Amino acid sequence: MRISELSARTGVTVPSIKYYLREGLLAPGELTSANQATYGEAHAQRLGLIRALLDVGGLPIATAKEVLAAIDTPDLPLTWVFGVAQHAISDASLYAPVEGETAGTRAVSDTIERMGWHVSPENPGVAGAARVIDTYERVGHPELAQIWEGYAQGAELIARADLATVGFSDDVTAMAETVVVGTVLGDALVSSLRRMAQEHISNQLYPAPKEPS
Amino acid sequence: MRISELSARTGVTVPSIKYYLREGLLAPGELTSANQATYGEAHAQRLGLIRALLDVGGLPIATAKEVLAAIDTPDLPLTWVFGVAQHAISDASLYAPVEGETAGTRAVSDTIERMGWHVSPENPGVAGAARVIDTYERVGHPELAQIWEGYAQGAELIARADLATVGFSDDVTAMAETVVVGTVLGDALVSSLRRMAQEHISNQLYPAPKEPS
Repeated sequence: MRISELSARTGVTVPSIKYYLREGLLAPGELTSANQATYGEAHAQRLGLIRALLDVGGLPIATAKEVLAAIDTPDLPLTWVFGVAQHAISDASLYAPVEGETAGTRAVSDTIERMGWHVSPENPGVAGAARVIDTYERVGHPELAQIWEGYAQGAELIARADLATVGFSDDVTAMAETVVVGTVLGDALVSSLRRMAQEHISNQLYPAPKEPS
Repeated sequence: MRISELSARTGVTVPSIKYYLREGLLAPGELTSANQATYGEAHAQRLGLIRALLDVGGLPIATAKEVLAAIDTPDLPLTWVFGVAQHAISDASLYAPVEGETAGTRAVSDTIERMGWHVSPENPGVAGAARVIDTYERVGHPELAQIWEGYAQGAELIARADLATVGFSDDVTAMAETVVVGTVLGDALVSSLRRMAQEHISNQLYPAPKEPS
């Protein structure tokens, strides 16, 4: 199909498609003349993925490019694809390495041991969790660090669900794409569910009056 | 203490403190002369909270102001404080209401019913979850919607832990502050833990070679 048809088919404007082509997020079409190219089903699918990463995942263009490159690398071990996706969507200030030993880094080590997890020190979650726990202490809410264990159990259930979906396909590229989409959009899904469950449980424990007092 | 001492004590620069005073995030000090004010322990604590919301939580100033106002409103029912904190930190494009009935809104209703949750339709998580599920379908990964149930169970464990901390105090302002800090920083903690658990479980299921092939 021509670029105008690709645009009509996917709802992505022609200037946006040209921009993704220029930036290398979308592979070039097949040239049919000096200044005309034709596009296939794979282009339409890729455009859907690009828009999901940008619009729902909230990724900047450069980051989307990085995770799409991980999908496109043949035979990249799956744990590495997770790593690329995780690093790419991990806000640098939250996940930057924590210097030295702190209450947070100790709490993280303890929990990893108690949960029996095998986690490399480069996992961005290690620094992120330590930083949040240190912040709880700094703002005078060390009690929040005590819920850590419930959080870790919840996170393990969620990660098991994450990995279950990966096995739905035995094509490596499809698995890699599942990892990226699941990592980027999954955070949004987990936060959404947490908000619902919080309302349910807080209404049980602290019923609200109908009108503000 | 004077503003310079407050700055030395908290590590927040004097221009930043003056900015927070102007923006109404920090209550004015007590005037000791026409152009000098004195600040107390409460100011130092509030500054810590402001920096946590801005730096670790990544909130814009206007949003931080909104959630701090919720903390400062006496007798606001706790479920409402949750609501304010959730709405304030919920990215508008993800959590904007979904128009009409979609596969996503149906999946959300089903899950709420199966989990036995009492959730109001205005909960931002309802639209957020529906939007993520619809996006899974649109990008050709409907299999991701099947992990929903594991996610919901994980989210319930996490929300139970969230609510447990609220009960650690019986002072309403302290409870409200716990809700805000926990909601804003808790998302970061959950994402961090999910990243660690993903690595652990993906290594179990799909062991990676030592070097890329």
